Amino acid sequence: MIVYLNGQYLPENEALISPNDRGFVFGDGVYEVTRVVRGKSFRMDDHMERLRGSLRGLHLHLPPETLAAIPALHEELVARNNLQDSDTTVYLQITRGAAPVRTHFFPSSEVAPTIFMSASLFVPARESLRRGVNAISVPDVRWQRCNLKTVNLLPNVLARQQAREAGADTALMHRDGVYTETPNANIFAVIDGVIRTYPLSNYILQGVTRNALMEFIAARGLPVREFAIGMDELFAASEVFVASTMSEVQAITEVDGKPIGDGRPGPVTRMLLADLHAAMGLA
Amino acid sequence: MIVYLNGQYLPENEALISPNDRGFVFGDGVYEVTRVVRGKSFRMDDHMERLRGSLRGLHLHLPPETLAAIPALHEELVARNNLQDSDTTVYLQITRGAAPVRTHFFPSSEVAPTIFMSASLFVPARESLRRGVNAISVPDVRWQRCNLKTVNLLPNVLARQQAREAGADTALMHRDGVYTETPNANIFAVIDGVIRTYPLSNYILQGVTRNALMEFIAARGLPVREFAIGMDELFAASEVFVASTMSEVQAITEVDGKPIGDGRPGPVTRMLLADLHAAMGLA
Repeated sequence: MIVYLNGQYLPENEALISPNDRGFVFGDGVYEVTRVVRGKSFRMDDHMERLRGSLRGLHLHLPPETLAAIPALHEELVARNNLQDSDTTVYLQITRGAAPVRTHFFPSSEVAPTIFMSASLFVPARESLRRGVNAISVPDVRWQRCNLKTVNLLPNVLARQQAREAGADTALMHRDGVYTETPNANIFAVIDGVIRTYPLSNYILQGVTRNALMEFIAARGLPVREFAIGMDELFAASEVFVASTMSEVQAITEVDGKPIGDGRPGPVTRMLLADLHAAMGLA
Repeated sequence: MIVYLNGQYLPENEALISPNDRGFVFGDGVYEVTRVVRGKSFRMDDHMERLRGSLRGLHLHLPPETLAAIPALHEELVARNNLQDSDTTVYLQITRGAAPVRTHFFPSSEVAPTIFMSASLFVPARESLRRGVNAISVPDVRWQRCNLKTVNLLPNVLARQQAREAGADTALMHRDGVYTETPNANIFAVIDGVIRTYPLSNYILQGVTRNALMEFIAARGLPVREFAIGMDELFAASEVFVASTMSEVQAITEVDGKPIGDGRPGPVTRMLLADLHAAMGLA
């Protein structure tokens, strides 16, 4: 596999960074994961807008021309891996670079940011999408800037691992009595016929797939309300699903051992998954 | 400078890691910073106990013999840098290693943890210790496992940078109306003649210097109470100081532009700094 590191395309095993990189010592960086279907990036404008927001949140300044080049780098990297006819994801990480001295405060502007990208074949979870998956509820112990897509992902790592050890596929994280996100996706539910999801705030990431679904929902004229799903409401839902680049539109059919609705992916979930695939040209 | 990386001693510029290291992509790792004075580690048992706690919190399992070797590696690294007659700090970071595939959940047990160590000359902040420094108050937006010493340090980085941009030396972070920590130190205050500091909990790190000070305070029979300092109490304090390996016992003489006490390091602060230096053999 060929990866991109600071202006160079390299075999993966030759791409190396310093352990002084602030991404390594502080998690001082941001990332994006973008779907590139048959060489064409999906909703790249959304990814770039969120990336700019994350960089702004970290006060991490890139030259405008560096930022402007990023969309083309995605497609170039896919092509260099001969994946231009495949369904792929591209991982992009930008950190504040390797500083000679470890200080919490920012290094001098001479320290160049690190830019790393890799491409992988996207393997759809067909069976999970068809049958639904189970989840557990776990407290959301993340920091209070969850709208920034940073690599400070330890709470996400631990929640996902906890789910796995409990025999579940993912974790519905809750804070202050309501569901916020899974470790890597936005949460939706259909309650009393209304599609509900956590409103945009500092407590959730603005998912690119979430954006897409909100457009599909509007286009279909379905009732929707950006209002958090209470822990006491979850089992009143006829459908629960999660949305992200990696999860697509994934039905959650069981939570903490109890079924959601009839225990199968519901009609809204299936409709939105079909809309997503159609928008990607995968219909 | 010679650093230690996964069993090897290398010149710093030859020590390289994969950008797939989970320390880089998730901040999935822990660290310690230990003072080594004239070749002798200060309170290494405390550091090792905290390290074991952090590793346990991350479910990151190291072979017992690997853990047992860590204290000796500190002194060996100092010696290899010809710093055995100097006052130094050793930085140690352990991550869950470089996994071939990026998944939030843990990789297979075949993925070896990454162990990185570097040594630096410790330069005491004599002038700051003598005069005191100023601080600003900022919200503590960290996650809810602040007792684990992990490299998910972005909130600390941003708070310290915010302080610097405000012309301050550090930031007193507050949560729920009380002061918790600075980005790299525990906070103490003397209020009505009683030394106060945040109790041990998931909201603060158990500082090794904090441990030492609590022993000095007990040995001197000074009144002390592990009870958080309210935001409304701070300016009633006759002294405020912070304690950490890097800060030693540092007086905070001004917060948000207003003086603490008479605006100079107080007697308790100076006494505890002298006790710390004495315990390190620096008296």
